Amino acid sequence: MSNSAQEHKNEKLSMDELQRISVEEFKQSAKFPLTVILDNVRSMNNVGSVFRTADAFRIEHICLCGITAQPPHKEIEKTALGATESVSWSYYPDTHEAITHLLNNNYEIYAVEQTKNSIALSSFQINKSKKIALIFGNEVMGVKQDIIDRSHATIEIPQFGTKHSLNISVSAGIVLWHLFYQLTQKE
Amino acid sequence: MSNSAQEHKNEKLSMDELQRISVEEFKQSAKFPLTVILDNVRSMNNVGSVFRTADAFRIEHICLCGITAQPPHKEIEKTALGATESVSWSYYPDTHEAITHLLNNNYEIYAVEQTKNSIALSSFQINKSKKIALIFGNEVMGVKQDIIDRSHATIEIPQFGTKHSLNISVSAGIVLWHLFYQLTQKE
Repeated sequence: MSNSAQEHKNEKLSMDELQRISVEEFKQSAKFPLTVILDNVRSMNNVGSVFRTADAFRIEHICLCGITAQPPHKEIEKTALGATESVSWSYYPDTHEAITHLLNNNYEIYAVEQTKNSIALSSFQINKSKKIALIFGNEVMGVKQDIIDRSHATIEIPQFGTKHSLNISVSAGIVLWHLFYQLTQKE
Repeated sequence: MSNSAQEHKNEKLSMDELQRISVEEFKQSAKFPLTVILDNVRSMNNVGSVFRTADAFRIEHICLCGITAQPPHKEIEKTALGATESVSWSYYPDTHEAITHLLNNNYEIYAVEQTKNSIALSSFQINKSKKIALIFGNEVMGVKQDIIDRSHATIEIPQFGTKHSLNISVSAGIVLWHLFYQLTQKE
C-alpha cells in the first residue's frame, strides 16, 4: 500500500471511465419491466427529463398520451439530451387506449397521485413477478379521476412541506429510482 | 360496511384534504438534518426545483454558492412555486466558505458525483446521529474536484443508460428522497 495522496485521490470519472453503453447496445439490452405513462403532460421540459431518467434506469417504454408532446422536438431535446434515441416510446391520443393496451398485456397499473387510498411510496413493495406501469399526470390537474379508476392502485410520495406537490420530472425520478432500487436489491 | 361504489372510490384529495402546513408552521417545525449545497448551479429552473423538493421533505437549509442565483427571482419562482418562502437558505460567494462553515459545525459532507471511490446510493447507509450536507454541482462541470477533495465521501446514483448523468433537480430529488426514506424507516 502506498501513501501517495495522488493514488488515494477521489477523482472524478471521465466520460470514458463512466463506460456508458451506446444507443444500439441500449436497444438490445434487457430492460427493467417498468413502463411510464404520461397522461396529458404539458411541459416539454418535463417530457425530456422523464426520457433522460428512463434512459438512466433502463426503463422498458414510455407511453405519451393526449396533449403530451412527442419527439423529435427541440424543446424536448433540451432536457432529454439524446435519450429520445435510446428509450422506446409510443403515442396514444387518449390515455385510456394506453391503459387498455397495458391491461390486456397483464401490467399492474399504478397512478402516482394523492388519493384517499393511496399507498405511501415508502411502504410500497414491488411485485417482482409483474410488469409495472406508472402513470404521471398533468402539471396542474394531476392524473384524471377516470384514469385513476382504471388503475390497480395509487402511489403517493410522502410530503411534509407547504406546497401541494412535487414537479413531475422530480416525482418520476423519485418513483422510478425507488422501484429500480427495489428491483436491484438482493432478497 | 357498505358496498356503495362511491364510498370505495379512490378519490383524489382536494387541496384542503392534503392538510399542508403554512409557511409559519414550516419555519417552526422540526427539520430533517439535511443541508443542500448548490455549487455553481447555472439554471434557475434547477434552483427553484430544489427549493420545492427541499420544502416537501422538510430539509433544514440550502447553501447557494458562487454563480447560483438567489431568491427573489422570477425564474426561480417558476419552479419553486413559493418554496423560497418556507425553506431556509443563505448565499456564499465561494463554495469553500460554505464547506468550511459546515465542517466547523460537524456536518458529514457528501458530494453527489461519479468518482473513483464513490458510494452507490443503493449501498449508502445514513448515519442518523450526524447532520448531513449534500453537494450538487454545475450542470456541465459537476462538483469541482477541490470541493470533492474536502468532502467526506462521494455518493453516486447508479445509472445504466446511454447518457452520462441525470438532470440536477432530478438527482437532488432522488438523493433527498432516499435519505429521507432511510431517516423515516423504523429500525
